[in-house]
Amino acid sequence: MKNDNLHIELLPKEKVLRDPVHNYIHVTHQVILDLIDTREFQRLRRIKQLGASSFTFHGAEHSRFEHCLGVYEITRKICDKFARNYPTQKPGDGLWDDSERIVALCAALLHDVGHGPFSHTFEGIFNTDHEAITRMIITNPKTEVNQVLKKVAPKFPEMVASVIGKTYPNPQVVQMISSQADADRMDYLLRDAYFTGTQYGSFDLTRILRVIRPYKDGISFDRGGMHAVEDYVVSRFQMYQQIYFHSVSRSMEVILDHLLKRARYVYENSELQVVDQLAPFLEKNWKLDDYLSLDDGVLTTNFGIWRHHPDRILSDLATRFLDRKPLKSAVFDSSTKSMIPKMKKLIDEVGFNPEYYTAINDSFDLPYDLYDPHAENPKTQIEIMEPDGSLTELSELSRLVRSISGEETGDARFFFPKSMLLKTDQTQIFDPTYQEFQTYIHNGHLVNPKKK
Amino acid sequence: MKNDNLHIELLPKEKVLRDPVHNYIHVTHQVILDLIDTREFQRLRRIKQLGASSFTFHGAEHSRFEHCLGVYEITRKICDKFARNYPTQKPGDGLWDDSERIVALCAALLHDVGHGPFSHTFEGIFNTDHEAITRMIITNPKTEVNQVLKKVAPKFPEMVASVIGKTYPNPQVVQMISSQADADRMDYLLRDAYFTGTQYGSFDLTRILRVIRPYKDGISFDRGGMHAVEDYVVSRFQMYQQIYFHSVSRSMEVILDHLLKRARYVYENSELQVVDQLAPFLEKNWKLDDYLSLDDGVLTTNFGIWRHHPDRILSDLATRFLDRKPLKSAVFDSSTKSMIPKMKKLIDEVGFNPEYYTAINDSFDLPYDLYDPHAENPKTQIEIMEPDGSLTELSELSRLVRSISGEETGDARFFFPKSMLLKTDQTQIFDPTYQEFQTYIHNGHLVNPKKK
Amino acid sequence: MKNDNLHIELLPKEKVLRDPVHNYIHVTHQVILDLIDTREFQRLRRIKQLGASSFTFHGAEHSRFEHCLGVYEITRKICDKFARNYPTQKPGDGLWDDSERIVALCAALLHDVGHGPFSHTFEGIFNTDHEAITRMIITNPKTEVNQVLKKVAPKFPEMVASVIGKTYPNPQVVQMISSQADADRMDYLLRDAYFTGTQYGSFDLTRILRVIRPYKDGISFDRGGMHAVEDYVVSRFQMYQQIYFHSVSRSMEVILDHLLKRARYVYENSELQVVDQLAPFLEKNWKLDDYLSLDDGVLTTNFGIWRHHPDRILSDLATRFLDRKPLKSAVFDSSTKSMIPKMKKLIDEVGFNPEYYTAINDSFDLPYDLYDPHAENPKTQIEIMEPDGSLTELSELSRLVRSISGEETGDARFFFPKSMLLKTDQTQIFDPTYQEFQTYIHNGHLVNPKKK
Amino acid sequence: MKNDNLHIELLPKEKVLRDPVHNYIHVTHQVILDLIDTREFQRLRRIKQLGASSFTFHGAEHSRFEHCLGVYEITRKICDKFARNYPTQKPGDGLWDDSERIVALCAALLHDVGHGPFSHTFEGIFNTDHEAITRMIITNPKTEVNQVLKKVAPKFPEMVASVIGKTYPNPQVVQMISSQADADRMDYLLRDAYFTGTQYGSFDLTRILRVIRPYKDGISFDRGGMHAVEDYVVSRFQMYQQIYFHSVSRSMEVILDHLLKRARYVYENSELQVVDQLAPFLEKNWKLDDYLSLDDGVLTTNFGIWRHHPDRILSDLATRFLDRKPLKSAVFDSSTKSMIPKMKKLIDEVGFNPEYYTAINDSFDLPYDLYDPHAENPKTQIEIMEPDGSLTELSELSRLVRSISGEETGDARFFFPKSMLLKTDQTQIFDPTYQEFQTYIHNGHLVNPKKK
Repeated sequence: MKNDNLHIELLPKEKVLRDPVHNYIHVTHQVILDLIDTREFQRLRRIKQLGASSFTFHGAEHSRFEHCLGVYEITRKICDKFARNYPTQKPGDGLWDDSERIVALCAALLHDVGHGPFSHTFEGIFNTDHEAITRMIITNPKTEVNQVLKKVAPKFPEMVASVIGKTYPNPQVVQMISSQADADRMDYLLRDAYFTGTQYGSFDLTRILRVIRPYKDGISFDRGGMHAVEDYVVSRFQMYQQIYFHSVSRSMEVILDHLLKRARYVYENSELQVVDQLAPFLEKNWKLDDYLSLDDGVLTTNFGIWRHHPDRILSDLATRFLDRKPLKSAVFDSSTKSMIPKMKKLIDEVGFNPEYYTAINDSFDLPYDLYDPHAENPKTQIEIMEPDGSLTELSELSRLVRSISGEETGDARFFFPKSMLLKTDQTQIFDPTYQEFQTYIHNGHLVNPKKK
Repeated sequence: MKNDNLHIELLPKEKVLRDPVHNYIHVTHQVILDLIDTREFQRLRRIKQLGASSFTFHGAEHSRFEHCLGVYEITRKICDKFARNYPTQKPGDGLWDDSERIVALCAALLHDVGHGPFSHTFEGIFNTDHEAITRMIITNPKTEVNQVLKKVAPKFPEMVASVIGKTYPNPQVVQMISSQADADRMDYLLRDAYFTGTQYGSFDLTRILRVIRPYKDGISFDRGGMHAVEDYVVSRFQMYQQIYFHSVSRSMEVILDHLLKRARYVYENSELQVVDQLAPFLEKNWKLDDYLSLDDGVLTTNFGIWRHHPDRILSDLATRFLDRKPLKSAVFDSSTKSMIPKMKKLIDEVGFNPEYYTAINDSFDLPYDLYDPHAENPKTQIEIMEPDGSLTELSELSRLVRSISGEETGDARFFFPKSMLLKTDQTQIFDPTYQEFQTYIHNGHLVNPKKK
Repeated sequence: MKNDNLHIELLPKEKVLRDPVHNYIHVTHQVILDLIDTREFQRLRRIKQLGASSFTFHGAEHSRFEHCLGVYEITRKICDKFARNYPTQKPGDGLWDDSERIVALCAALLHDVGHGPFSHTFEGIFNTDHEAITRMIITNPKTEVNQVLKKVAPKFPEMVASVIGKTYPNPQVVQMISSQADADRMDYLLRDAYFTGTQYGSFDLTRILRVIRPYKDGISFDRGGMHAVEDYVVSRFQMYQQIYFHSVSRSMEVILDHLLKRARYVYENSELQVVDQLAPFLEKNWKLDDYLSLDDGVLTTNFGIWRHHPDRILSDLATRFLDRKPLKSAVFDSSTKSMIPKMKKLIDEVGFNPEYYTAINDSFDLPYDLYDPHAENPKTQIEIMEPDGSLTELSELSRLVRSISGEETGDARFFFPKSMLLKTDQTQIFDPTYQEFQTYIHNGHLVNPKKK
Repeated sequence: MKNDNLHIELLPKEKVLRDPVHNYIHVTHQVILDLIDTREFQRLRRIKQLGASSFTFHGAEHSRFEHCLGVYEITRKICDKFARNYPTQKPGDGLWDDSERIVALCAALLHDVGHGPFSHTFEGIFNTDHEAITRMIITNPKTEVNQVLKKVAPKFPEMVASVIGKTYPNPQVVQMISSQADADRMDYLLRDAYFTGTQYGSFDLTRILRVIRPYKDGISFDRGGMHAVEDYVVSRFQMYQQIYFHSVSRSMEVILDHLLKRARYVYENSELQVVDQLAPFLEKNWKLDDYLSLDDGVLTTNFGIWRHHPDRILSDLATRFLDRKPLKSAVFDSSTKSMIPKMKKLIDEVGFNPEYYTAINDSFDLPYDLYDPHAENPKTQIEIMEPDGSLTELSELSRLVRSISGEETGDARFFFPKSMLLKTDQTQIFDPTYQEFQTYIHNGHLVNPKKK
């Protein structure tokens, strides 16, 4: 056993946490229980997993806390399966060394511990980086997480961080937590499907866990379970199309982005009341401890104050976010992108500042990776193992997977105020402007009216 | 038709909202869509349905927003069923007058609109009353809700408020929204079961909706569906036992209660930083608009500030709430209640102020009503209709229901710091105090050690 | 280990069978795979689990084959749980000796192997006894089952048979297979609920498996899981009320019973064509091999021949069974039982032979046992274990269970031809007879019209 | 209204049948209730929906009876939706004329009424044709179905038959019952997924029913629901790959085919006992009434007799079918097909008659149609309607659908006795033959050992 110098304490009796997706989260190690109880991990209860998606799917109020528990639980099941069916006999045989279990479990649990409120938008404005912060939380000796991890071994925090950073030497452990078919993706698909109330994400986890197996360079799947893996990849594609790329959620993210940008502008150029927890970020002088005080409620509490601010753009955007008043949008492509400047001009004419009331949002840029066997890191392909032990990359076996591989699948949208679509008897004085604007949109797409 | 002077505008096309419990929420009336879009209703997104229960069941992050939509949806289905199968022929025939639909739907949607963050605890401290506030939101001419309702008819807000206040003349409409088997209870049981991930609340809604029927004095159920109604009542009982009365959730409510009490004490006796939205409540001088600025995030944002306050009780309780450090508890009854003063004294001895670190919490007092056919208001019995039209009260037909009727079913618990249960090798100096304390507890109950 | 002289062969790789209720049935022992492949066990595919209930719930076509697999799977999970958490340390410590696993698994799989087509009705007519036949199949050296079992040990068939016969010395093994909360009941409740499409039987198996534990005299449940066990008992009660005692299913069983009785009468008194497989039973001279040739299809194939027989009662009853023409029924009790002779006379008058066209069917007699802690065998109570190891009988802790314990819960029904309820304008010549008959029935119950 | 001369009788009160897939089947017309009660329709209870697939998926015992009810129920829901949202205003407007409802419902219910036991195999041997028989059952004046239909109108049976035969003039009605996205396919995917216990078939029916809409030439789907339709097509593909084309089920069909062939051979060349119901088919002289006496049980009852027949091939194949002893198989393609004659020769050498113990089975030929927009009948494409009313064929919008369109997706397999794979220490005398045979198979595929 490689890691036999770790101090591993088992609980006198297994504890369970009720979970709607996995039924129970099973905890058998003291270190896992202690990590869950840390301040840094409990904080994840106050951060929504899907951010602005809950404005579209009202059930999706679930937190990053439960997602992290779910990734831990799937990892635990994979370890159980590997330990039972593929225990290593001698070093280098490509089988599973169960002394790797504890580092895998801790990395699974902590892989997202650095996330903040509405991470993707917040990071763009305030230059935070949740991956770097995850590493800081794990390795900074002041955090409770670090102190808990150190009880296992002095170097243990760095081991856990290296798994998340993908530099850990054992590729099986790394790929459990991050690869094209890892515990992270498996949990979020199932969980987001459950809480949004859609079925697209509901692949057959039990079957995938039956066919998953270690090999020398990482993780693969038995040939007999190819269709279960194919179904998982298709589910992921469908979740992106239907949930993660939904235009209303993206519109609310646009509003959030513009609101935070305006807040920074007002803060720098006039006066803005902010609560303690947010101030360091507007001051551009924040520490880890400041970051750990943020959560969704801190942001919305500020917005609740700002909605009464004299700056009309700020107060309007705050109101739009709190009261869910999304922008509208239309799809464009390279042939119709040229319409956008004209449309912005019309929007400006009726009194909306285009900088804050329009946006181009490209779901291709969304920080999710679709399945791509030709990506830079060839290790993260999904490999299928034939009965004789040879490996085949999934898209060679599956026409469905092939059809969605290596291509971008999102859409590019132009966002604008809903009132631009008002019918002319409602708009009165600006009638011709509204009318012209509306000629640029047909069937939800930008069009060039001259070419019609 | 009674209400033929109402202005009712239908949407050009039905809209739907995806819902994990009912699959879809169907909206066909402009007024319903407009109500959902109001500031007051959108605010419910930021208020958890189950408050502190999410500390026990981590999936239970669902909001009052979606519960209100669910109550609306069940009410809509009941109206559909009544209109199809039991349309009134002449006044007083005890059948359904579909001109009552719009008032029923609005009342269903708005029945909880006055709820605030962690209502039950908050109300105890700050003397707010969510039912009174619900009525204010509906009838106060400054709210968006009121303005939307008035488009239906000038008196319409009062009509809707009277349904919620149970003074509306048509008992069928009133009982749809509030009775022993109403749309409110049906939705919260199903929804809370879904999001906690338990099965206890999963009765057969489809079957109940098949057998529900109007009669002169309200709502009853066909004899053939007696078992479906019985199952609903048993489900409710089990949800109370297993979810709503859970000792850890109650412990977190105790901490919240003590935290808010301490904050008020510090505010009044020394100095306390509070964010704008909470200040009026500590000042005891709040208006409806202040109340509408509150949400869960405002409270936790304050707690995030207070955790750094020099008052050690305040900062400790804030930390306990944010980082989920519940008190422990044990069940007592009339024969062991007398142990409590001694136990408090021991708790005091090791340094915890019993006023803030102990509590007696009686789940009998929890603001939920179990089925009780002998309650003060006999109209809210569940009535079963025989083939010949005669009515029988449910508990006369069902042994299961009879067994849980008219009795209190909760338990009384004494809450105390977890460290009181530390084993002596961990407690060192206070050993004898801890040891003595622990003799008062056996199998999770208070005991009188002398009588053992 | 007690049973260390057994020859136990593991499969090179676990095999699974897809199962809608348990997701997968996991097979790890060669003997289990071989038993499943025997002629006697495969025969169970052709015997419906619920017999005539599929006439009421059309989804309930599931077979005894899959139920037996389900009981095996639950038993396997219980053994896993016991082996992990409660392994015996020394003889007599009341914990689990995992060398008992193989006998438990085989007994679970084979506990119903002696069932025949529509067992309960068939047995009444032809004096077969599925429990005795189960033992014969296991112990008779000519069966494939016996030959497979003998490979484990020469005495192994008798060991397995004694578990099913409840004479096996280890009460833990016996109670896994037959007690008030055994793998048999757990599987059939879940399975019958799934295939009928009702929810009543859906208790929380995962939670029950978490709290089940061995003790000296058998099997008990942790105090913390009391509510899960309570829910299981209530589910069972509801399944009996709603599914197993359904009046239409009982009516079809009455028809089957009368049909077989008439067939025997015709066979003995005139001439009747029967297929090979049924003949020995009408000859009252059958052997085990004959019994193993029976299945549901053999019976219906005979009925398909008999529907053309000149005996009008025989052909009519065969047609009624094949084409689902149930009798009607009404509930009676001791006070109204006296009406039945008069009603039979009226039925006779309009031309139906009461011996074949009426019946008294008492669901109390149905071969299912409701929870009864005061039954003759006190060992089969459901015991709850407190933290200190003491035991409490479930109904002492649960008001719900108490309310349905130790009492009969079925209903007594009088069955008669549906045409007796025809309205008089349809019946013409026999009008007064029909009219009189109908005065004896009100709200689905027999009544004494004079007392009304 | 076009069909205003039909006599349509509504039930005094809606009746429901409990259904695991649709929760309830709702019946509101007397004619539907009467059709369900006919002898011909009740017969479908005794015919399995999936034939030999239950040998692979033991839960799949569901009958054609319930599938027909399910197709009816989906059709009913489509009619409801069309009548509410797209009622015709004037002839030829492409909207829905609700007077078509009754013919649609009857055709939906009866579309499979002509199926017999293990249809696809049986038809190949005995030259029956379930589609022709469906028409006969509907139009032959001796059937109960015909008599019930005639009560609606004298020409009504022919109208119903023409819908099933696709010659009915209204393409909307025809496409509800048979098109690439019809009620038939929707029900069987959901139902087969439910009873096999797999998830592949679980598309979102509710959403599809939201977006389905009539147009002039048939049925289309709103653009907004494109992904739901895409998911349905992918589900269908996956069900074929995973369930319908499963090699073990096909192997059992091969055995059944060879068994019936051998039975015919024995019947014609020596002596064979058969039960009354099967005899006319071996005599090649059957009538409709004979066909209506067949069911699964009649076949297995014959097999139960034949397993004792002196013809060893017949008795062995009967035993194999009853006791589930499948042949093994391996995939071949054009490059390895040439190995088959050699392999047959080896099989012959060890004593198996290749005519009865081998088979080439091509799942491409299975009687299911995968989505193909380029099929002979271009009307059955799946059309998506843009907001402006224009239509686009689904595979133009969906990469996933495109990837599985217009191509064959099954596999070709060579079936042979399992014992050919025995390892040499088990086979003894014929060792070299077995050894050679095994060199032709690798990773489940035929290979040319010389080229390896």
